[in-house]
Amino acid sequence: MSEIKIVIAGARGRMGSEAVKLVEDTKHFQLVAVVDHKYEGMRLNQIEGFNADVPVYTDIEKCFFETNPDVLIDLTTPEIGKVHTKKALLYGVRPVVGTTGFSEADLKELQQLTEEKGIGAIIAPNFAIGAILMMKFSQMAAKYFQDVEIIEQHHDQKLDAPSGTGLKTAEMISEVREEKQQGHPNEHEILPGARGANMNGIRIHSVRLPGLIAHQEVLFGGDGQTLKIRHDSYNRASFMSGVKLAVENVMNVDLLVYGLENIIE
Amino acid sequence: MSEIKIVIAGARGRMGSEAVKLVEDTKHFQLVAVVDHKYEGMRLNQIEGFNADVPVYTDIEKCFFETNPDVLIDLTTPEIGKVHTKKALLYGVRPVVGTTGFSEADLKELQQLTEEKGIGAIIAPNFAIGAILMMKFSQMAAKYFQDVEIIEQHHDQKLDAPSGTGLKTAEMISEVREEKQQGHPNEHEILPGARGANMNGIRIHSVRLPGLIAHQEVLFGGDGQTLKIRHDSYNRASFMSGVKLAVENVMNVDLLVYGLENIIE
Amino acid sequence: MSEIKIVIAGARGRMGSEAVKLVEDTKHFQLVAVVDHKYEGMRLNQIEGFNADVPVYTDIEKCFFETNPDVLIDLTTPEIGKVHTKKALLYGVRPVVGTTGFSEADLKELQQLTEEKGIGAIIAPNFAIGAILMMKFSQMAAKYFQDVEIIEQHHDQKLDAPSGTGLKTAEMISEVREEKQQGHPNEHEILPGARGANMNGIRIHSVRLPGLIAHQEVLFGGDGQTLKIRHDSYNRASFMSGVKLAVENVMNVDLLVYGLENIIE
Amino acid sequence: MSEIKIVIAGARGRMGSEAVKLVEDTKHFQLVAVVDHKYEGMRLNQIEGFNADVPVYTDIEKCFFETNPDVLIDLTTPEIGKVHTKKALLYGVRPVVGTTGFSEADLKELQQLTEEKGIGAIIAPNFAIGAILMMKFSQMAAKYFQDVEIIEQHHDQKLDAPSGTGLKTAEMISEVREEKQQGHPNEHEILPGARGANMNGIRIHSVRLPGLIAHQEVLFGGDGQTLKIRHDSYNRASFMSGVKLAVENVMNVDLLVYGLENIIE
Repeated sequence: MSEIKIVIAGARGRMGSEAVKLVEDTKHFQLVAVVDHKYEGMRLNQIEGFNADVPVYTDIEKCFFETNPDVLIDLTTPEIGKVHTKKALLYGVRPVVGTTGFSEADLKELQQLTEEKGIGAIIAPNFAIGAILMMKFSQMAAKYFQDVEIIEQHHDQKLDAPSGTGLKTAEMISEVREEKQQGHPNEHEILPGARGANMNGIRIHSVRLPGLIAHQEVLFGGDGQTLKIRHDSYNRASFMSGVKLAVENVMNVDLLVYGLENIIE
Repeated sequence: MSEIKIVIAGARGRMGSEAVKLVEDTKHFQLVAVVDHKYEGMRLNQIEGFNADVPVYTDIEKCFFETNPDVLIDLTTPEIGKVHTKKALLYGVRPVVGTTGFSEADLKELQQLTEEKGIGAIIAPNFAIGAILMMKFSQMAAKYFQDVEIIEQHHDQKLDAPSGTGLKTAEMISEVREEKQQGHPNEHEILPGARGANMNGIRIHSVRLPGLIAHQEVLFGGDGQTLKIRHDSYNRASFMSGVKLAVENVMNVDLLVYGLENIIE
Repeated sequence: MSEIKIVIAGARGRMGSEAVKLVEDTKHFQLVAVVDHKYEGMRLNQIEGFNADVPVYTDIEKCFFETNPDVLIDLTTPEIGKVHTKKALLYGVRPVVGTTGFSEADLKELQQLTEEKGIGAIIAPNFAIGAILMMKFSQMAAKYFQDVEIIEQHHDQKLDAPSGTGLKTAEMISEVREEKQQGHPNEHEILPGARGANMNGIRIHSVRLPGLIAHQEVLFGGDGQTLKIRHDSYNRASFMSGVKLAVENVMNVDLLVYGLENIIE
Repeated sequence: MSEIKIVIAGARGRMGSEAVKLVEDTKHFQLVAVVDHKYEGMRLNQIEGFNADVPVYTDIEKCFFETNPDVLIDLTTPEIGKVHTKKALLYGVRPVVGTTGFSEADLKELQQLTEEKGIGAIIAPNFAIGAILMMKFSQMAAKYFQDVEIIEQHHDQKLDAPSGTGLKTAEMISEVREEKQQGHPNEHEILPGARGANMNGIRIHSVRLPGLIAHQEVLFGGDGQTLKIRHDSYNRASFMSGVKLAVENVMNVDLLVYGLENIIE
């Protein structure tokens, strides 16, 4: 595999610093610069916690012009990420973007840009390959098992229930099966909420406990059998294999890919 | 261990026929008769599915008088079970009763009878030792982990949610911990019911799927760790080790025991 | 969907009697006859436990000739199954076969027959769709997670360890990943066997306990995350949805399919 | 509860720094000093990462003499831990010790010292309360379920298999049940090691995968049911609730306690 020249935006963030490590540790990846909102003109290894001797830019266009990278890994904020993604495409740099918040219109515009430029772009709201596989397998299993419930488990500092992954899983399952009201038609909640949330007939249960990190089970039931697909995410490192996969794939596609599930076979 | 002479009421029922097998297969148990609402004067082995050559009685008092058993295993209905339990105690026969539906007043009356007669009686709404241990361990763990959620999973023909065992577990935990509202104070259900039912601050989630039989997880969370206690019940045979334990124990107690958890150390 | 006319061989066996129920309960399936080694000339409903008023044949060729079925479901023994499969193809009847024990040569011969006749045949060593999905998903996940261990759990009457499904899963995973010796290079078994069986570097652990039925977990590990795929089989009914799927698919293929994983998308 | 004055030895270690946080965050605990092998005469808050304004001592006897604490929390090494424990008892300070490596003779000597001094001491090889409960419950369950297998799962950097907790669990279970050879008498390993390690007839299976941290399942099987007790340890914080419990309990005992399982009811 020939070497891939990479710029990282958001390198000082929690995801970004993991990405720097990933690029340094991957043989066929080469870090050529980072983009930051400060430290113009410094070298990255002048900032505490980093060893790479590469330039820091505050102007992303100047960065692209001077370092001529193949790929931009963007782990900034939704607003900045949108701007970066567009500029990357305009400069012929393939973006791998981990931020969410792109509207339908944004995506359409980016899609046109990839077509015009003939280069790929990957936007991934979730880089944990295990979670992506869990969702993909759940969608596949739903063709054979119509009855399914989702149990997602997170630490008790999480505010929203169900989790984004829980909702996304139910949505992906709903795409392939007809809406079905599960459980007994006359089932009765002695205590309200016992049967969980209802999304297109799929029940979602949200467990919140101290100690937990981020876990989800998708449980399918059929005659005399059950099938369970479970993902446990223990820390941020879990996202990096997805970033690596995206960087490798973005070199081989010439259109916009939204969601890692679309580059996983 | 000296032999224990046993009468079974409800022998032709699903639990009862398992109990007949249990008594036949246990070396120090001896089946001396069965009580039924019909077949007076027949031998049990004249009824299809049974091999034991013991008499069938429709009159339980006559049965006690003629066969002089140590123990009555009653697996009939709540109404009949109550009558049988009382008659057994009056005749000095120790009852092991699997039916529910005894009122506070009923239990008080039976307690007095056991005291007067100086013999034991065991009433157990649930004979599955694994389920009893799950509840007992959950109660013990709650002293050290205040945060707990219950996930009970049953086949989709079950009407009520949460299950009786789920409610009983939450009740037993509530006895030993102060009421605590778990989860983040500002947690928010995007879809109603996501966080499950709330019993004294303990969340209970009821999963219903074809293929499932009867399962329950009790999940405790604390700093950096979780503890899970799970019971899976696959078929009716799971009740028989509890019946055996009760028969052995009823010989050594001289009072009324309500619930197997009280004879388990 | 037009009606599919079906003959069942091995109808009085444990799998076979479930298959009879399946065909009776499926709207677009029609049972036209059964093949047995005795009861020639009788009707199936003259045999205890059956209601279907269809003829019983001991001569499978006569059966095919007189009833002209679309599909043969064969749930007999390996030896008889081989003979039946060949005869079915010769008569233009599409076979769905649940027996194992076909040699490479057998399969080659059958493949040729399907090509000559231009009709499909499905041979499936395992009809539990959940187990098939577990194996298929495991193979897919192994492209992204090289490290995997298999924990299969069965009742303690099972003689062989690992189970056939455990071995088959490891084999399917081995097809897509390079052999890798997992665990720490210097890992040390204080007690021999602790790290399980080793198949192409994949560790397989066999748990045997009373109460268990047939369960398997495939556990993948990567940076900061794990992915678990678990199948629980509770009873024979779990095979019937696979038989149904095979019958429906055998009508649409014109070659030999070995293993349900090949008709699952 | 009146305030407990505490000295911590090993405060700069990974466990020790968590212990400092614990003492600071607990209302009725007061940190009065730390013992270190350097930094004599400094204040703890002069060392990076600490805020507490308490003295650092290199001489533990001088520390005890000048600060007069109730409890010593020792999280150093086995060698130093032994010396500290003895000195603490001699000075009337109750030790809570997290190091292992005490011999039978060491324990006997310490036991005598506690008796002479009439004060308590707690030595705990494992402070994770969830793990202690898992072992304790397993021992209790083994009275009712003779068949049990242990599946312990750790990251793939762990060298020894089975884990210490796995062995300790099997040992505790062996104390209460007769040795039993589990599985079918004629069971056969097609691949060696499939059935795991054998300790007194109990099978132990060691799973090693990247991503995993420290997990253990103890699985009991009986007629028609299984009972599973599982502990997941995600990080070092999991030990602190055990340290807290030990500090509170060491004030109320007047003898040597070895193992937290002995102060848990």
